[in-house]
Amino acid sequence: MQPGKQFCAPNSDYASQNFMKKWKHISSKTIHKDRWIHLRADACLLPNGKAIAPFYVLEAKDWVHIVAVDSEGRMLLTRQYRYAADVVSTEFPCGEVDPGEKPLDAAKRELKEETGFEAEDWQLVYVSWANPARQTNKIHCYLAKNLLQTGGQSLDESEDIEFGFAKVAEIKDMIQTGEFTQVLHIASLYAALDQLLKDE
Amino acid sequence: MQPGKQFCAPNSDYASQNFMKKWKHISSKTIHKDRWIHLRADACLLPNGKAIAPFYVLEAKDWVHIVAVDSEGRMLLTRQYRYAADVVSTEFPCGEVDPGEKPLDAAKRELKEETGFEAEDWQLVYVSWANPARQTNKIHCYLAKNLLQTGGQSLDESEDIEFGFAKVAEIKDMIQTGEFTQVLHIASLYAALDQLLKDE
Repeated sequence: MQPGKQFCAPNSDYASQNFMKKWKHISSKTIHKDRWIHLRADACLLPNGKAIAPFYVLEAKDWVHIVAVDSEGRMLLTRQYRYAADVVSTEFPCGEVDPGEKPLDAAKRELKEETGFEAEDWQLVYVSWANPARQTNKIHCYLAKNLLQTGGQSLDESEDIEFGFAKVAEIKDMIQTGEFTQVLHIASLYAALDQLLKDE
Repeated sequence: MQPGKQFCAPNSDYASQNFMKKWKHISSKTIHKDRWIHLRADACLLPNGKAIAPFYVLEAKDWVHIVAVDSEGRMLLTRQYRYAADVVSTEFPCGEVDPGEKPLDAAKRELKEETGFEAEDWQLVYVSWANPARQTNKIHCYLAKNLLQTGGQSLDESEDIEFGFAKVAEIKDMIQTGEFTQVLHIASLYAALDQLLKDE
């Protein structure tokens, strides 16, 4: 291979984060901030001495995804209109973690609000950055089993969410047809499947 | 199950998008726009008559992910500092589709720029919305095979990207340790693996 910027993966020294120089934060300016969005423009200094300004950062609350699986292995999906893309999107139950809330509690709350279901068994599937280049938030994905529908939905006036169960093969087909059409949720589908296989 | 907002998945009428009412766009106001970011605030009317304003939308270029696999089944990874999350992230080669550029051409360009590799075989793995609630862009994920390193990297002054190969099992371990830590790329890993299994 060509010489240069090569690494060995995985890196045994990863936890230290010392093997790659980070950018230096110089200053931050708020571009727009209200209860829905917080966009800031930072000035930064790169390790090579180059200045970058503006570099835009979206401060965002963490998100939860819930992959709820019934006794036949079917997964609980939601369907709702997604405005920015102007598309009806089939996904997993999901939502924001409120300030001070634990991610697992947010997952339980969102599952119940969007579908009326509760679950006896909860497992963490992954915690990972939603988009570490631009956003400050992580996604916490949970696998929920032993489901019981304990009530109806509890939606905001602005929410219109349908729900239903589908087999894994059907969901994979829906990725191909564009019915299950949100990349973040494709990650949660496959990562939860991996976890389910380990449990068997 | 409780009555109400249930659906059967997959929906045979999905292509028509007629089974769920969409929001009506009333107006748009630009909050911030330059060569790096375009944030607008829309006013919308929901099917139930409720007005929503502001609803924020990030207009964004489409993105490409490249899962490049060598003859031993190892995948070509990149590693770079991601400022918003302040983390060194191991991922697949990726980037923006330039205006007028075909997504496949963008994928070939980004692979070569970030790693110096070219590939003889290209397959589309998925096209899906990055975040359809807030963003207007899609991700196009490609599987690249029969790799040849035809040169060195070709990076911008602000880019510092390392690259290397890893086995699939190693990448899955890196998801657990937080070394491979970007949800969008977790989706591409698994979706490409599904495609590779179908090809066998």
